[in-house]
Amino acid sequence: MPDRITLYTAKICPFAQRAEIALAEAKAEYKRFEIDLQNKPEWYAPRVNPASKVPAIAYGGPDVPPDQPSPESVKIAESLVLVEFIADLFPEAGILPKDPVKRAQARFFIEGVSSKFIPAWFGFQMRNAPVEEVYKAIEYLQSLLPESGFAIGEFSAADIAIVPFLARARVSLLNDIGAFPEGEGKKVYAEITGSKFARFAKYQEELFNRESFKSTFDEAYVTEAFRKRFANIRDQAK
Amino acid sequence: MPDRITLYTAKICPFAQRAEIALAEAKAEYKRFEIDLQNKPEWYAPRVNPASKVPAIAYGGPDVPPDQPSPESVKIAESLVLVEFIADLFPEAGILPKDPVKRAQARFFIEGVSSKFIPAWFGFQMRNAPVEEVYKAIEYLQSLLPESGFAIGEFSAADIAIVPFLARARVSLLNDIGAFPEGEGKKVYAEITGSKFARFAKYQEELFNRESFKSTFDEAYVTEAFRKRFANIRDQAK
Repeated sequence: MPDRITLYTAKICPFAQRAEIALAEAKAEYKRFEIDLQNKPEWYAPRVNPASKVPAIAYGGPDVPPDQPSPESVKIAESLVLVEFIADLFPEAGILPKDPVKRAQARFFIEGVSSKFIPAWFGFQMRNAPVEEVYKAIEYLQSLLPESGFAIGEFSAADIAIVPFLARARVSLLNDIGAFPEGEGKKVYAEITGSKFARFAKYQEELFNRESFKSTFDEAYVTEAFRKRFANIRDQAK
Repeated sequence: MPDRITLYTAKICPFAQRAEIALAEAKAEYKRFEIDLQNKPEWYAPRVNPASKVPAIAYGGPDVPPDQPSPESVKIAESLVLVEFIADLFPEAGILPKDPVKRAQARFFIEGVSSKFIPAWFGFQMRNAPVEEVYKAIEYLQSLLPESGFAIGEFSAADIAIVPFLARARVSLLNDIGAFPEGEGKKVYAEITGSKFARFAKYQEELFNRESFKSTFDEAYVTEAFRKRFANIRDQAK
């Protein structure tokens, strides 16, 4: 029986949503505490995560309010570490399958998300880096997908690792919020959901329909937050 | 009972040694095949690892010579994916402990190795980037170490992730092989094994004494290979 869990998170942050999806998949009971990333509470870095990032989990210890974290709980950070942690705490949730080969395939997919998709997407969104890198990364991930189903067939940590980024990329592209040229967003979205990436688009659709994703993603909030946060990003990238 | 394992590896490569150490810890039976990274066999990318890197494992399938890999074996790549895979195949080897919190702590340490130590070290060795980044990374990792023992107390995947890099850094520094200014290597080695990093130096010493490390590290070979491979690196970095 897992111990008490408090999750420090932020609706805008794709890394943080990974932990929320994993907890939703596990049907875990936990306290959720929203951190305002633009104005972090002064206690957060010294008492929860020295790197001052979300997500982080306080595990165990006494029952305290989240804004008064106890030194007796264990603090754990880094989104992928937390997804594995939640998978270990709740093995019956199937966040990682039991078969070592399938587990390796999930982790290999995640490696591609981390080393290829995320840098390419952030490069395009934040610095107007070439969109071809995004297409290449999607083509690569598409090549790893089985004929149907999720990244390794059954829903797993691999899907948890990518869906928060795809959802925010969609918000960015459909609302034209990013460093890329004005009007480019919708064209890129049409491309990545078009015939060349048909298998990937189907995968994305199934990800967006997953209950654990839907219940942890507030599209209106993220859209509004993106508008504010990236208001000047197109000019800054020039 | 795990299936047949063939490891494609290279003595010079720190990533590849991670898989070798994990297999040694597990006392696994496997076939070892050395890939000449300067002259890779033509069958390696199409039939084992499309990324053309080591390490990779062919798992299962018929008993074939390593240079004639069967399409029936599963191919798995990426060093950290392989370390987890070997930990999953051989749970009794204790490469990852059973306790979810300890497992998370091991993975968090690995995250620091990947995102802080390796880029700082490669920057200094290959491009004469500021050595202060190396010191900062070591200071950070040192801050994670318990009072005694390995990264999370007992030997684990966390130690497997770092020791091949520390061993090659030592070879590079003590033999002054790198893009850094001539004569700088020994000074840096003295610094990172000096009083400021005393806890880390003790940790490194214990890592270097681990049997699974010693049996998979050929110092004379690596030194000679570094001399050849990095013969012109100091001039190139100028």
